[in-house]
Amino acid sequence: MDKIISLCKRRGFIFQNSEIYGGIAGFYDYGPLGVELKNNIKKAWWEEIVQKRENVVGIDGAIITHPRVWEASGHVEGFTDPLVECKKCHERFRADHLIEELEIKETGAVGEELIKKLTRALKGVKCPQCGGELTKPRRFNLLVEAELGVVEEGKKKVYLRGEACQNIYLNYGNVLSSQRLKIPFGIAQIGKAFRNEITPKNFLYRQREFEQWDLQWFCHPKEMEKWYDFWKEERMKWYKSLVNHKENLRFRQHEKDELAHYAKVAFDIEYKTPFGWKEWEGIHWRGDWDLSRHGKFSGKDFTYKDPETGEEFVPQIVETSGGVDRTFLFLLFDAYQEIKGCRTKTTKAVKEVEILLKLHKSLAPVKVAVLPLVRNKPELVKKAKEVYQMLKPHFSCQYDELGSIGRRYRRGDEVGIITSVTCDFQTLEDNTVTLRERDSMKQIRVEILKLKEVIQKILEGEEFLKFGKIIK
Amino acid sequence: MDKIISLCKRRGFIFQNSEIYGGIAGFYDYGPLGVELKNNIKKAWWEEIVQKRENVVGIDGAIITHPRVWEASGHVEGFTDPLVECKKCHERFRADHLIEELEIKETGAVGEELIKKLTRALKGVKCPQCGGELTKPRRFNLLVEAELGVVEEGKKKVYLRGEACQNIYLNYGNVLSSQRLKIPFGIAQIGKAFRNEITPKNFLYRQREFEQWDLQWFCHPKEMEKWYDFWKEERMKWYKSLVNHKENLRFRQHEKDELAHYAKVAFDIEYKTPFGWKEWEGIHWRGDWDLSRHGKFSGKDFTYKDPETGEEFVPQIVETSGGVDRTFLFLLFDAYQEIKGCRTKTTKAVKEVEILLKLHKSLAPVKVAVLPLVRNKPELVKKAKEVYQMLKPHFSCQYDELGSIGRRYRRGDEVGIITSVTCDFQTLEDNTVTLRERDSMKQIRVEILKLKEVIQKILEGEEFLKFGKIIK
Repeated sequence: MDKIISLCKRRGFIFQNSEIYGGIAGFYDYGPLGVELKNNIKKAWWEEIVQKRENVVGIDGAIITHPRVWEASGHVEGFTDPLVECKKCHERFRADHLIEELEIKETGAVGEELIKKLTRALKGVKCPQCGGELTKPRRFNLLVEAELGVVEEGKKKVYLRGEACQNIYLNYGNVLSSQRLKIPFGIAQIGKAFRNEITPKNFLYRQREFEQWDLQWFCHPKEMEKWYDFWKEERMKWYKSLVNHKENLRFRQHEKDELAHYAKVAFDIEYKTPFGWKEWEGIHWRGDWDLSRHGKFSGKDFTYKDPETGEEFVPQIVETSGGVDRTFLFLLFDAYQEIKGCRTKTTKAVKEVEILLKLHKSLAPVKVAVLPLVRNKPELVKKAKEVYQMLKPHFSCQYDELGSIGRRYRRGDEVGIITSVTCDFQTLEDNTVTLRERDSMKQIRVEILKLKEVIQKILEGEEFLKFGKIIK
Repeated sequence: MDKIISLCKRRGFIFQNSEIYGGIAGFYDYGPLGVELKNNIKKAWWEEIVQKRENVVGIDGAIITHPRVWEASGHVEGFTDPLVECKKCHERFRADHLIEELEIKETGAVGEELIKKLTRALKGVKCPQCGGELTKPRRFNLLVEAELGVVEEGKKKVYLRGEACQNIYLNYGNVLSSQRLKIPFGIAQIGKAFRNEITPKNFLYRQREFEQWDLQWFCHPKEMEKWYDFWKEERMKWYKSLVNHKENLRFRQHEKDELAHYAKVAFDIEYKTPFGWKEWEGIHWRGDWDLSRHGKFSGKDFTYKDPETGEEFVPQIVETSGGVDRTFLFLLFDAYQEIKGCRTKTTKAVKEVEILLKLHKSLAPVKVAVLPLVRNKPELVKKAKEVYQMLKPHFSCQYDELGSIGRRYRRGDEVGIITSVTCDFQTLEDNTVTLRERDSMKQIRVEILKLKEVIQKILEGEEFLKFGKIIK
């Protein structure tokens, strides 16, 4: 984990938010490489969930909504985590974090049952900071409040959305009437949410400001089970397609006492992180809870009439919901490799550890590096810059002339650059370049005229060695 | 304007936020077509500002930052609009909105000068709601406050960012040390900001939650003027490349009393909207104000040492900053056309008005419609669905079989679909389809085998008629 955090800062993936003012717990900023990787991740999800399907559409709703939304959703009353405070040093902790094996899998839903369970489990547990006595656990609401309105007296309390999906329920009727959709169909969204986490921790994993992706799938009550199974498998397949270590993915079925009262079943897709198996995405059986509650609180009727059979029902919902930032983090865990003994074999420092960030081709923030073999030959530099200008409009590209060629390859491997183009003395003679593949470190010789097409195909997944003979 | 709002709701571009609860002033949600259009707009900006340039990188920072940020930036003290209240009905108004010709061009910077000016101008002006007497104008701070932290007593006041660009200054040092950049270079960002607007109005134009794009260009003090002029022209060129009505774009130079004290000059790019010429993007001379202030408040030193000359200076900043939502709105104004007398000539309703949304090819939310000529011939429907499946992985596509073919063309024109593919009886014989272009309504015949390539080229800007003879 420390190595990932260090790489993230050193190479510009993630910076601590407001670092020059000492930072603020639970908030991070994405740097130049981070924003490209995050955008690629979001794009991949949008393609998978919205663009490739005929019956899923997207929306993008505001972070602030009418406060009644959060009463209807049950968050104002029930979106709580268990809090304990040290009677001596007044430090506050999330109760379940003090007993690791009891950690609540889904944040924000603490019942009286759990409070009792925690109270028993915490007997004898002291403050981890000063050893003082702890208060009994109590429920602490996670919604972040904000003030809207024009003057002090007239200010209105609103909430920053605690989960992004509420906008989808709010817009269900408008989407249905403006689009040519029939049940079953889905509405998808990517957007920020905010939670007053008691103890933000594990870097990007538990933040106070974070981004979620949600698909809400509206279907006939009789088809809930079928669609639940469908989406469970679809989502697992997708995550498997993005990682190197499929063995680090698993389903975890929720225990009965973890289930929301309306849910028949719930599964998480979990990933094995350095801090244990953690939720990546949750596939939830929401039934008619959301539409019924908003129907009741708003006075609207969300009954759906089947245009063919005339049957009337309130659509039920399968939700599949994950975190963008945690996807970013888990994919870094999955991609990060340390190779001892100078993998690139181009420096003498054979005892140095080399870092390889083996990100999926579609996600890597930079696809191509263009390198002159040496920087003190103007012809080579000129040629390399020409190649760079040629490729730049088509791929995310980087020009790098600083340091030995081996060092530059390593610098590229460290941030996951898929392929490197080197212009050398032969280039000046025959207009070919060396193309190097990140994962195999194999090198082939390619004509500059064909370069764009070859790189395009490699990025689409075609076999690197198809395009030339190995020269190294 | 009403027509745009109505189109936006009817076709799923924009919905009122929390509409089922009566809405909340100043907040909107993007619907299925809206989110695609907005994402295309953001992508176009990112390509223009970040991807095509060698010396601009992106970031994506958190909405909530350390509260000291907003003291250093001057917002806690000075980010104000002028407020008046009716003494009788207690309705509140933005003072300058009551005197249209006095509207403050840049929100959030009201000096004592302006308050005096407004006080004079408001003499005799009554409450537009009840005719009551108005209070004197006073400064009202626009920052939206939120509460962070774990328990009531320990809550900490933070601000939702009033302008997104602050994250860029905060990360300047980290970006510089993690990337291979030299002055001059730029940092770009797209992200949400929040303002407690006194009177949100004009649909997406003045919202309380909105999205901004910012480029902050860091340069040598001696080169400020050069770069200022460079970016001013670059930005105007870009907007011109996206609109149909270039005559609706202009520069407006800020008056001396509008200028921030550190600015030598300021220009807005304005667009002629139904409610007058309005700011689209601002090109600002920020000098060393931001880095100096954050340097002072954080105790960090942002002096830059030129690696070649050894010269030391605090970089100065040219900012060019616009609104994503207002770009969305202005582009709708620009694209919206009503054509009387049945432009598509395919229905008998010659007196009906037809709507054409002439959006730029790169921005249109749906690129291709696939239509069977009639829906009651299974062979045609089957063929059209095959064509749809073939095109869908490559373009944003819509399949539509409902209503007459003319009606379906009109439905496509109304949301800006670039080209329509119709499968008819001839298709079954010779595997060709009719391809129709939105703007000219010209139709040509294209082989299905070549369809993907032809559409690709049309979307890249090639001449439609290059690909076949006009048949209609």
